[in-house]
Amino acid sequence: MTRTIAVIGCGLIGRAWTIVFARAGCDLQLWDPIPEVRAALPDLLAETCRISGDDPGALSRFRVLDTLEEALAGAEWVQENGPEQIAVKRDLYARMDRVAAPETILASSSSALVASSFAGDLAGRGRILVAHPVNPPHVVPVVELCPSPDTRPEIMDRAEALMRDVAQVPVRMTREIDGFVLNRLQAVVLAEALSLIEQGIVTPQGLDDTICHGLGRRWTLMGPMATINLNAPGGVADYLERYGPTMARLADGAARGEAFTPGAARILAEAMPGPEQVPSLSRSRDRRLAALSRYLKQSQNKDH
Amino acid sequence: MTRTIAVIGCGLIGRAWTIVFARAGCDLQLWDPIPEVRAALPDLLAETCRISGDDPGALSRFRVLDTLEEALAGAEWVQENGPEQIAVKRDLYARMDRVAAPETILASSSSALVASSFAGDLAGRGRILVAHPVNPPHVVPVVELCPSPDTRPEIMDRAEALMRDVAQVPVRMTREIDGFVLNRLQAVVLAEALSLIEQGIVTPQGLDDTICHGLGRRWTLMGPMATINLNAPGGVADYLERYGPTMARLADGAARGEAFTPGAARILAEAMPGPEQVPSLSRSRDRRLAALSRYLKQSQNKDH
Repeated sequence: MTRTIAVIGCGLIGRAWTIVFARAGCDLQLWDPIPEVRAALPDLLAETCRISGDDPGALSRFRVLDTLEEALAGAEWVQENGPEQIAVKRDLYARMDRVAAPETILASSSSALVASSFAGDLAGRGRILVAHPVNPPHVVPVVELCPSPDTRPEIMDRAEALMRDVAQVPVRMTREIDGFVLNRLQAVVLAEALSLIEQGIVTPQGLDDTICHGLGRRWTLMGPMATINLNAPGGVADYLERYGPTMARLADGAARGEAFTPGAARILAEAMPGPEQVPSLSRSRDRRLAALSRYLKQSQNKDH
Repeated sequence: MTRTIAVIGCGLIGRAWTIVFARAGCDLQLWDPIPEVRAALPDLLAETCRISGDDPGALSRFRVLDTLEEALAGAEWVQENGPEQIAVKRDLYARMDRVAAPETILASSSSALVASSFAGDLAGRGRILVAHPVNPPHVVPVVELCPSPDTRPEIMDRAEALMRDVAQVPVRMTREIDGFVLNRLQAVVLAEALSLIEQGIVTPQGLDDTICHGLGRRWTLMGPMATINLNAPGGVADYLERYGPTMARLADGAARGEAFTPGAARILAEAMPGPEQVPSLSRSRDRRLAALSRYLKQSQNKDH
């Protein structure tokens, strides 16, 4: 049976989600509050497909609709990608909760707001969750599924199954926490990185090389837990016994929020390619991520 | 001119280094204090090559020597891979500093000890540094070059040039710091990861998926600084203005050394493949890392 998915808010993230669902053969109903965005969607989606090497034929199944109500009609899943402003999200979810059929799941791409902050008062709060992707989701498959205290377990089950069906990698959290998992991990890396750079111990390029040609490479094939499981002859328990005290000492001495200084920002802004290069570098990133994603899928199939 | 490289200590790391230098056409002089290790080296090196898909022909240029003195004779660079014990390293460096020609660079693979801790008192302390690889260096190219306060700048210049010549990616640090760069970054990730897992917010598998199918994928193609430079329309300064306060708050709330608990170790040991699987999983990791390394080199050549 063909699934009907509504994508609400069609900026970069919404368009990337559209490709995820279209690839998987879903019928798509798209809506954005800005008429100009709606009008430009077919061309923008074709362009996104072109960069990622996706077949534009997959996009024949989408319809751009004039109202939120039409977009939600008959949808099994709503992927919302509105601005990260609490007032906007509250209004939008109140409206969507009134309009959507009772069995429709409402999922937010929010990275900064937890579901309870915008859904806690709604009658349908049990079918609302955060499904936080990494930018852009059509070339980076992870999706954090974070419930509010009110999200029903069977909604989480359905969310997890649906995300697997559309070939994403769901990470199911058991409860709400600020920053979810991914941005909590990113935050500690950024804090320590900014501190090392501002102290002049390493250049921004050196810092990036350390991850890109070092840690990041291992972490693409297996996460940090699987990595340390192979870094001592007796596995992870052996690793933590041997190196845990050293790692604990390093973590205790690491930088925190105070590392986000204007000085660090200045050093980085001078060292990195300027804002005028952001669009072309982003296209190149997406093209390379798409190719890497195909490579990893292929090499995984060979391994199993 | 063919370079002569001495590899001192021929466990896993020493053998991986041997392949790095052999691939680049260097002449290799290998020595390990244990006679059985020396005797087994030709077979073990051939096996390492087989797993990584390297041409075993590259290994025709190595000689296993019976004494440290013979191994160091005429070497331009000594890569030392002894045990991470301060007394052992001090003895070894005192001996190597007496034996090696004045222009020979002595570089330690140490991940835990800084060069001043074992070289500070030696006449030749100016030519001693740490060249810390990621395990295993023949399939992960980054090498942290960390001077002691006594290491001469021209030695750092030569170290950087040599590492580039043998196709590694050197990251030059300006001064000594506990954990260098890579393990400081790894430590904060591990601390927060263990904490989230022990709190039951996410499973070990979910944590690994978040990095492996999310952050790690972006970080394989560009480091964390290049990543945030593309995550706001105005580049890195814009990113830090928009998201810096949120990231700072998350870093302030993150776990530190206290997260390395026996409880977390127990959960992980139960969730991960057991110690008996470590050897075969390590071989599979090295094979996949070697393939990924070839893929990334190829795709980078295509991009430029």
